[in-house]
Amino acid sequence: MDSIAYVNGAFVPLQDARISILDRGFLFADGIYEVTAVLDGRLVDSASHLARLQRSVDEIALALPRTLAEIEEIERELVACNHLTSGLIYMEVTRGADGGRDFAFPPNSVTPTLVMFTSAKELVETPGARTGMTVITVPDLRWARRDIKSVGLLGQVLAKQAAREAGAGEAWMIEDGMVTEGASSSAFILTKDDVIVTRPLGHSILPGCTRNAVAALARERGLRLEERPFSLEEAFEAKEAFVTAASVFVQAVVAIDGRTIGSGTVGPVAARLREIYIAFARATAV
Amino acid sequence: MDSIAYVNGAFVPLQDARISILDRGFLFADGIYEVTAVLDGRLVDSASHLARLQRSVDEIALALPRTLAEIEEIERELVACNHLTSGLIYMEVTRGADGGRDFAFPPNSVTPTLVMFTSAKELVETPGARTGMTVITVPDLRWARRDIKSVGLLGQVLAKQAAREAGAGEAWMIEDGMVTEGASSSAFILTKDDVIVTRPLGHSILPGCTRNAVAALARERGLRLEERPFSLEEAFEAKEAFVTAASVFVQAVVAIDGRTIGSGTVGPVAARLREIYIAFARATAV
Repeated sequence: MDSIAYVNGAFVPLQDARISILDRGFLFADGIYEVTAVLDGRLVDSASHLARLQRSVDEIALALPRTLAEIEEIERELVACNHLTSGLIYMEVTRGADGGRDFAFPPNSVTPTLVMFTSAKELVETPGARTGMTVITVPDLRWARRDIKSVGLLGQVLAKQAAREAGAGEAWMIEDGMVTEGASSSAFILTKDDVIVTRPLGHSILPGCTRNAVAALARERGLRLEERPFSLEEAFEAKEAFVTAASVFVQAVVAIDGRTIGSGTVGPVAARLREIYIAFARATAV
Repeated sequence: MDSIAYVNGAFVPLQDARISILDRGFLFADGIYEVTAVLDGRLVDSASHLARLQRSVDEIALALPRTLAEIEEIERELVACNHLTSGLIYMEVTRGADGGRDFAFPPNSVTPTLVMFTSAKELVETPGARTGMTVITVPDLRWARRDIKSVGLLGQVLAKQAAREAGAGEAWMIEDGMVTEGASSSAFILTKDDVIVTRPLGHSILPGCTRNAVAALARERGLRLEERPFSLEEAFEAKEAFVTAASVFVQAVVAIDGRTIGSGTVGPVAARLREIYIAFARATAV
């Protein structure tokens, strides 16, 4: 964790970065977040993250306290402050702190809260890129609007803890026998017919920025990609499986619930998409 | 809102009551809360709220930073500090603030956060007790573990805001045509056959402390009470409807989605249960 955070207009040491206990992010999970990768000191796929931020806040009728351009500028300033060359920037906007605790929205005089912090992390040359990771499955317990990137993440916390306790790197969530997505990633498989499959957008999953970019890049390169739900059984039979996320880009999945996927090593399609995505990320970062 | 809050061992002015932006309550809604009524300066149905707190934290493997007896003592101290005779005390415990942001649980060295604040409010002689309130219905969007009283409340926030915009006092949430519960209350009807009906406990609803006490009191007095799901259509046809919650005790519902329930005024059963509950609350407050 780096040492400077942003809290409502001020750049402050992280240990002094505090919010009111009345903040609606803390009382109601009434807030939206984004995590953006930083490569070479620049923001990866920033326009996509900002567009999703705008979409999420619109869905819950939360007015951003700054324009998207201002938010991006604050992110860049925070990256510079922290001399961050590789890592993640976390941003959260909440409906602010009113004088009390009322479920319904506060008056317009209450300013939304905007906080950011960064963490340094090697994103390209990672052990997981070479070895892939294992995944477990858990029931998808989440609410009906997973397309909204809200901070109501307790289901994902419990899923990730279950994964850790099983020695796995991620938990895939299952609903009606079908994979929705990972607790903090989008889920993909490569079928025996060399079709990349991932669940279509909708209320059941988060519209992953990295998912969308990887899907577009795959199609541009002539790879076959279908957006449709896939079952856990189909995943077990897949040639390859992988996840996408801002924090891992593209990462191969080599086993699910203890069953080896394909060769049990990082497959060529996952490896290629990772390379393609990283090249895209570097070329378009701002 | 009163002026002294409790934050991790310290009694501080509410405007200085702050937590880290890394607190897992703020980042992940990884926290549990309780709201307890205060009457005559004493805690209403405190043992039930503390037992539910323990149950909720156990369900998410969160260790309380204080014993239940200590927590009750802190509540009483805060009530005394704030000279609170009538109102509510809010308590939240979260999995604390680690140095960074990792979904899985932090190490045991990270102390859970415990905060409390109070708000003064007349609870007995309220306008709503005389007139009842109107209710709208909304789809129940919440996650699959509503029995855990977590701070992941965005679905309820949106429901309550919809109610306010419709000029209603509460939103009842509907799932598969059946009423689950109110956004911040338990839902009851009185059928034409004079049977009080409320949804049974399970993962679909919060185990309401006031719900449970009112149900027990009704049975003790020989009123017929069935715990079973009921549909919106059955509610429209009911003689009476009402809600229970720590913040309103028992409150009559006189219309749902613009349709008058029964006489359109506070019915005798809701009025009687309110009286019985308030007597119980005063007699057993600590």
